Amino acid sequence: MNRAFLAALLLSAAPAVAQQSIAKLPPPVVADPRVERLRDDALANDHYAWDIVEALTTEVGQRLAATEAEARARDWAVKRLTAMGFANVHVEPFTMPVWTRGAESAEIVAPFPQKLAITALGYSGSTGPEGITGQIVYFPTVDALRAAPDSAVAGKIVFIDHHMMPAQDGSGYGQFGAPRRQGPTIASLKGAIGIVIRSIGTDHHRNPHTGVQYFTDGAKPIPAGALSVPDSEQLIRILARKQPVTMHLTLVSQKSEGGHSGNVIAEVPGRDPTAPVLLVGGHLDSWDLATGAIDDGAGVAITTAAARHIMDAGRPLRTIRIVWFGAEEPGGFGGAAYAKAHGKEPHAIAGESDFGADRVWRFSSQLKTSDPAAYAQLAASLAPLGITRNDKGDADGTDVEPTIAAGAPWISLNQDGTRYFDWHHTPDDTLDKIDPVQLRQNVAAWTAMLAVLSGGIESGAKQPKRR
Amino acid sequence: MNRAFLAALLLSAAPAVAQQSIAKLPPPVVADPRVERLRDDALANDHYAWDIVEALTTEVGQRLAATEAEARARDWAVKRLTAMGFANVHVEPFTMPVWTRGAESAEIVAPFPQKLAITALGYSGSTGPEGITGQIVYFPTVDALRAAPDSAVAGKIVFIDHHMMPAQDGSGYGQFGAPRRQGPTIASLKGAIGIVIRSIGTDHHRNPHTGVQYFTDGAKPIPAGALSVPDSEQLIRILARKQPVTMHLTLVSQKSEGGHSGNVIAEVPGRDPTAPVLLVGGHLDSWDLATGAIDDGAGVAITTAAARHIMDAGRPLRTIRIVWFGAEEPGGFGGAAYAKAHGKEPHAIAGESDFGADRVWRFSSQLKTSDPAAYAQLAASLAPLGITRNDKGDADGTDVEPTIAAGAPWISLNQDGTRYFDWHHTPDDTLDKIDPVQLRQNVAAWTAMLAVLSGGIESGAKQPKRR
Repeated sequence: MNRAFLAALLLSAAPAVAQQSIAKLPPPVVADPRVERLRDDALANDHYAWDIVEALTTEVGQRLAATEAEARARDWAVKRLTAMGFANVHVEPFTMPVWTRGAESAEIVAPFPQKLAITALGYSGSTGPEGITGQIVYFPTVDALRAAPDSAVAGKIVFIDHHMMPAQDGSGYGQFGAPRRQGPTIASLKGAIGIVIRSIGTDHHRNPHTGVQYFTDGAKPIPAGALSVPDSEQLIRILARKQPVTMHLTLVSQKSEGGHSGNVIAEVPGRDPTAPVLLVGGHLDSWDLATGAIDDGAGVAITTAAARHIMDAGRPLRTIRIVWFGAEEPGGFGGAAYAKAHGKEPHAIAGESDFGADRVWRFSSQLKTSDPAAYAQLAASLAPLGITRNDKGDADGTDVEPTIAAGAPWISLNQDGTRYFDWHHTPDDTLDKIDPVQLRQNVAAWTAMLAVLSGGIESGAKQPKRR
Repeated sequence: MNRAFLAALLLSAAPAVAQQSIAKLPPPVVADPRVERLRDDALANDHYAWDIVEALTTEVGQRLAATEAEARARDWAVKRLTAMGFANVHVEPFTMPVWTRGAESAEIVAPFPQKLAITALGYSGSTGPEGITGQIVYFPTVDALRAAPDSAVAGKIVFIDHHMMPAQDGSGYGQFGAPRRQGPTIASLKGAIGIVIRSIGTDHHRNPHTGVQYFTDGAKPIPAGALSVPDSEQLIRILARKQPVTMHLTLVSQKSEGGHSGNVIAEVPGRDPTAPVLLVGGHLDSWDLATGAIDDGAGVAITTAAARHIMDAGRPLRTIRIVWFGAEEPGGFGGAAYAKAHGKEPHAIAGESDFGADRVWRFSSQLKTSDPAAYAQLAASLAPLGITRNDKGDADGTDVEPTIAAGAPWISLNQDGTRYFDWHHTPDDTLDKIDPVQLRQNVAAWTAMLAVLSGGIESGAKQPKRR
């Protein structure tokens, strides 16, 4: 570009939006300087969150729900939370069905023999070690499968495609996740012998995305797997040659009842034990393919670090309750167990962090209507972190939803999900995906939120030393 | 930034480099308009290269040297090259040792039980199906291993780290590839029971990078594998806890003599059968973990597409010889076989494309000294594609090196390797990594090179129809 022209352009640029008269603005809200100090200290100096997620992913690794690995994670969590100086550290156990993965592979037998990268979906039926062989029948969407006659599907292996793209708010996961959630049941009811889907993901790596699904409506469990995105595209190219495509599919898995899981709970005791508590947390379990750094080691780390910053500053009026929920991935068992045990207790807020480790970019809360002054304080305290109000937001979060349904007011600190579905539920969910700077921004946001809603922090009480 | 300040900055910016007097410049060189037309047509319209690499990777998939898959690839290649209208399409077979991969896994047994992603290196020894168990001994570099006393290594599993970073010219591969090339032999000679290395790669995905190594100096073959980069970093974090780390390693493989491979050769016949030929190509074989789109489906596609553009334009004076070399990955067997058969024949140039599918950014050639006028024409014809002269460049390319050593003048069209080692030798080397626009730029560059060195193209002869 010509420099003089560029210069002229820059100098002449007019504001894009007409300005409102300042006389019509709502009354000014200024953040509490004590909140700002805590927030900015966390933003600059937090190490608690990194230390937790680094140690959890290194020393425990994957922690599939209701397995021995998740039990090791609970033991680790109790030790860690106790060492960090939290009070009332304990496990609240529950039982649930347990599903575990065995050998898995997919191979095009004809017309172009080759192996494809696949992983089983949660609660998939098992092919047994010999696997199954069948012709592939292609559907571009889950609705195309629903619309197909049974005769087009019976005896075959269904393949469902979709076109999920990255989105900052993760909004594609609902619509484009349908092949995973509904596809296996629909395929089974139409007589398919198996189903493979294009991974619900936005990357192009040979790492398939697992995730939970259930067989409903009386459908018989059939083998159900996800091909990686490159392998799905390869299968589509093979199908485009218009010859019958035969796949040999091996997805071995086991399911049994009576598995053991549990929630790990810790508290920062408030000065008023009768005041409604601030409930924050994430989930401790992960899928078995990776170490669960972003899903959800980061979430437990962020919320716990924030609570610890409050504890470092003094004693809040309200109790802060941290929950590391068990067994979220197979269907929110920990969240349901917590609500069953505690849903009737008074909560001042309920919020979880479970969308990776990238920065918080907006927030929403029921406090907008139930406590506008607190909402305004939150907005003023979070804005310097680049966090905007989302006045139209909804409650979300598998683990806190049952407690919110029981009456707790909700808050959502939304993380940037643009990169999230590149790694979600894949072997790639590892520590290197966490950006320490963005992680600290998360801790600062949660610290500010807890500080605003704490009812006031009384400093001077003896605090444990930082470690 | 303040707009007025930015504008002032832009308007005042002075040239960074003092200018040479134009009177001292060498004589001007203007590209031949006929070359420019061919080049620009390829840049805008080429579909041959994409069609070849799409079909090869889809219809054949992986093509490990000296296996049935590589034989299928040769059959496919003969059909394809014949259908494209090339002359003298044939296979020149040779024999070689064949190495194939079996089951492979790595597991930390203590102190933190977990699985790590691993793949065997070429010609690795086999653990047998039961695997081996040993304590990990860490070395930050291959030289640190060389410096270690045998007593620190004997009976253990060596782990070698390194710090390879992306580079446009791929220059890290030489130095940082040493753990792969030399590590297994050194470890074996010191009495190690196995070796794992950090993948020679620049990505952070759970996809290990394989690659060839040989046991030299009388070293006994031991199991030798590469951990993915995230798994290597995980192992380093585990080792940082200063407890003994035990690994269970399973790397099953088989090696036998008398495998069959071959070079596939095709020609655009020149008007003068006695004129030295233009030799171009890439390698047909791939590693077995992926479909070999960038290594080296792209290379055979680019060079073949360029030859086809010359053929479309008419009949060159010189014969263009396309070679799809066999068995490059296990050690350049195809290149050696070609040189043995044809190295004494006169070649006007020898060049290969084997560094991915990203754009050509510079070139170098022996013609700089042996035929400065042709070199200047090449420079003028390639510059509009953003390709700069590299006057200090060297010959490179495993497959053409033996022919160059036998006397053929060399040319190197260097591709941008910034992303190459993210995918090189991993399961991620798939078609989606190829950018069609950059692929066409490659074809345009090779077309221009062939046109400049063709000795003149006589148009008007009947040409096969485009397909």
